[in-house]
Amino acid sequence: MIDVQNQIDTRGIKIQRTGVSKVHLPLLISDNGKIQQVAAKIRFTVSLSEKIRGTHMSRLMEILTDWTNTPITILDVEKILLDAQTKLDADFSTIQIEFKYFVEQSAPISDKKSLLDIDCKLDGELYKNSRMKFNLGLIVPFTSLCPCSREISSFGAHNQRSVCKVNLEIADMDKAEDFGIEKIFRLIESQGSSKIFPILKREDEKFVTEYAYQNPKFVEDILRDVVGTLRGVENISSFEVECENFESIHNHNAYAYFSE
Amino acid sequence: MIDVQNQIDTRGIKIQRTGVSKVHLPLLISDNGKIQQVAAKIRFTVSLSEKIRGTHMSRLMEILTDWTNTPITILDVEKILLDAQTKLDADFSTIQIEFKYFVEQSAPISDKKSLLDIDCKLDGELYKNSRMKFNLGLIVPFTSLCPCSREISSFGAHNQRSVCKVNLEIADMDKAEDFGIEKIFRLIESQGSSKIFPILKREDEKFVTEYAYQNPKFVEDILRDVVGTLRGVENISSFEVECENFESIHNHNAYAYFSE
Amino acid sequence: MIDVQNQIDTRGIKIQRTGVSKVHLPLLISDNGKIQQVAAKIRFTVSLSEKIRGTHMSRLMEILTDWTNTPITILDVEKILLDAQTKLDADFSTIQIEFKYFVEQSAPISDKKSLLDIDCKLDGELYKNSRMKFNLGLIVPFTSLCPCSREISSFGAHNQRSVCKVNLEIADMDKAEDFGIEKIFRLIESQGSSKIFPILKREDEKFVTEYAYQNPKFVEDILRDVVGTLRGVENISSFEVECENFESIHNHNAYAYFSE
Amino acid sequence: MIDVQNQIDTRGIKIQRTGVSKVHLPLLISDNGKIQQVAAKIRFTVSLSEKIRGTHMSRLMEILTDWTNTPITILDVEKILLDAQTKLDADFSTIQIEFKYFVEQSAPISDKKSLLDIDCKLDGELYKNSRMKFNLGLIVPFTSLCPCSREISSFGAHNQRSVCKVNLEIADMDKAEDFGIEKIFRLIESQGSSKIFPILKREDEKFVTEYAYQNPKFVEDILRDVVGTLRGVENISSFEVECENFESIHNHNAYAYFSE
Repeated sequence: MIDVQNQIDTRGIKIQRTGVSKVHLPLLISDNGKIQQVAAKIRFTVSLSEKIRGTHMSRLMEILTDWTNTPITILDVEKILLDAQTKLDADFSTIQIEFKYFVEQSAPISDKKSLLDIDCKLDGELYKNSRMKFNLGLIVPFTSLCPCSREISSFGAHNQRSVCKVNLEIADMDKAEDFGIEKIFRLIESQGSSKIFPILKREDEKFVTEYAYQNPKFVEDILRDVVGTLRGVENISSFEVECENFESIHNHNAYAYFSE
Repeated sequence: MIDVQNQIDTRGIKIQRTGVSKVHLPLLISDNGKIQQVAAKIRFTVSLSEKIRGTHMSRLMEILTDWTNTPITILDVEKILLDAQTKLDADFSTIQIEFKYFVEQSAPISDKKSLLDIDCKLDGELYKNSRMKFNLGLIVPFTSLCPCSREISSFGAHNQRSVCKVNLEIADMDKAEDFGIEKIFRLIESQGSSKIFPILKREDEKFVTEYAYQNPKFVEDILRDVVGTLRGVENISSFEVECENFESIHNHNAYAYFSE
Repeated sequence: MIDVQNQIDTRGIKIQRTGVSKVHLPLLISDNGKIQQVAAKIRFTVSLSEKIRGTHMSRLMEILTDWTNTPITILDVEKILLDAQTKLDADFSTIQIEFKYFVEQSAPISDKKSLLDIDCKLDGELYKNSRMKFNLGLIVPFTSLCPCSREISSFGAHNQRSVCKVNLEIADMDKAEDFGIEKIFRLIESQGSSKIFPILKREDEKFVTEYAYQNPKFVEDILRDVVGTLRGVENISSFEVECENFESIHNHNAYAYFSE
Repeated sequence: MIDVQNQIDTRGIKIQRTGVSKVHLPLLISDNGKIQQVAAKIRFTVSLSEKIRGTHMSRLMEILTDWTNTPITILDVEKILLDAQTKLDADFSTIQIEFKYFVEQSAPISDKKSLLDIDCKLDGELYKNSRMKFNLGLIVPFTSLCPCSREISSFGAHNQRSVCKVNLEIADMDKAEDFGIEKIFRLIESQGSSKIFPILKREDEKFVTEYAYQNPKFVEDILRDVVGTLRGVENISSFEVECENFESIHNHNAYAYFSE
């Protein structure tokens, strides 16, 4: 049967990324020794020589399918990217894996345990004969309470659910043992006005309400505190932070962004 | 050219609804004499006899396209449905039109004007030789402030953005002069702990913060107050109410539902 | 500490559903003996007496959290609903659990194995002293190929990805041993012009292309064939079918709906 | 009343972007002399000195509200950004405006007119004392037909709806008279296997089916042809192209990306 993909291309354009997107698969993520099965959405690409018409996308699906039963560490992401280069004769490959990850929360007073969902993205890019460039993305939810509203009002203060989206590039792959999902989450969730919890009994609700009231923060305050926190994290070469407050007094959001 | 749709079907199944969905078109909505251009998402269907294989969907698109320049009142929705029955030889037709609608808000103290977006759905169903069954759907945003959190806390109270989704069936089409989008919106937005506004100056922010604090409501309180309000609205034969609070202290929502 | 939720309400409105929505949790689903971990999105509600102000939502979260480690069969859904009634002193409870479920596909010629994602919804409602009313919802993807386009064109025929959304109410809970997710999926995926597969080698691609071309179906054809198929399934008291073709020649969809 | 935002900040972190996001407003877009009202979703930010605690977000909403009745050209976007800098004492400002834009399509044989929706993004960034850096983003839908499937199959070929997402940076603002939405759309829609149309009569459907069959293109072919096309467009300094085919034979997409 003719291999149409393998035809010679004469347009002279080398393609940076070609592959599959919005692939849904169950994967096993290994973070700091803990293995969690996740429902992943994946984009997986390779480069394509300017001389070849198309890539063989079914091979990318075969590679992904082979990994559904094996726990994946950060070094495995590099292996997946290398495997793609070999099997598709490419000198560049990328993968983005997005999923909900669950972390255990303990209510502040009752100590009730529950599972909080956070959004994660593993983002790897590999050039031939290099180490992988890797970014960890997290979306961390918490409460924010407005300092202006608190200050000018005789009682109360508007507050709301907020998210902080961080994207961290790892500096040295040799020192990257795990994704650090939970570790980074713990650092970020503390930068809002209060952490949030799926289960709160009444004594817990009193605690988080009062804690947030005593800890008012603008979206800019949260952003700056996250920036300060990330500057102290080892093995990060660059980062982006995006904070968004789902304002309770508006139908739009307050937003702040920083990268370095 | 052969008309494949018009082939005889022998499976003996009359289809209740066949047509087009996720059609995006600009439309002119006439609500109580005010005309507003909206970006609509439309589903438009007709019934299909058990003897015919397929309907002629391009005719539905032609009908919709013809209406893009004419203001649409509630009676026009009935005309559109009748037109579909005639042009597609059907005895039942339905249309659902969803769009963002903008209402003018005035900040409570500064009186600053701004435009608030609400989500609307016009939902019509017409059987041959009957009057249209029509539902107006609105999603109205406001603030909710938790009575429990306020009561048990020494200071502050958690609050958040909330939405109330109402769906109202009109009792008597002869008395239905307009959709009543803005009229129903005004009734519903007052049932939360506080209305919300796109532009709030500092004196307004103080006002809404204190207003919400003095007006604490559970999701159940809001639901009951909306139910009480809708029972007093003329020309409604049935309604559904769904309230959702985007809890600032959780990553999930509080929810309540009522229909009668 | 005062129990504000437990205050007496005088508005005289019994609430049909109050609880939590958009809760994300990992669950274990047991379908016909096979256990699969899924990332679930859940709505969980109870009724509330007209005499009580609010329900205790943290108890609903505790019930859900307790179930994260136990495989859930259809009878367990009824147990969860009963548990909610007991712990929240309610006479009606509902749950909706939505998740991606993975089924193994074998490519038609190469027999290559891969995992296809389908969307599932488990929907249970329980009145006190009754059996649960249960609906299984599935969204099944496949290819559709247009009979008109094929007939009138000298070569080729437009085709596209399509989905069929079915909602099945179980007739007799005593005979409902499992959800039947995979069983119903197998019946539905065969009603399009061709099944779809995550991995297809060239010989498979030839097969599905030719198979679809020889099996042209309008959205109405697919709907009628699904209706005919579901009428033959045991232990279903009613069903809804919604088919949608993501037309390759339009930017909107073809749509058909049937219920009985 | 105290101005909490205006307090001195000692963390020493200058914020690159702070403002409002997910603002929904009706706007008038002027593209090459044609004015179209759109339902916009907007993000609007300014920089914030390391010495100041928070920005005054209501001023950003006031600026946007003032523009709801005035047609906006590309030079007006620069004016909006300059206005933000003045009113919020900032040296950098950004705006992203997303909306559906409607272009008139004429069916290829019947010449039937209809309105096709495309997704647009206007993206401006302005540093003090510079000209605006401006990107136009478009998502253009069309049909793709697989060359491999066509070649290896005895009849037919799988095809599907596809989108091409382009992002174009304008080289010289002095020569940028209009956004060029329709002009760029026309260039891109021709790079698929066939253009798509909201209304197609039977003779048109035959035409587009046969046209696509005679014009098979991989996602990589489309990408390369779009790249070649954009290289010929004047006044573009850089661009990104992302193509995605909603594969009719899979439940995932084929994807390709290029930037220069």
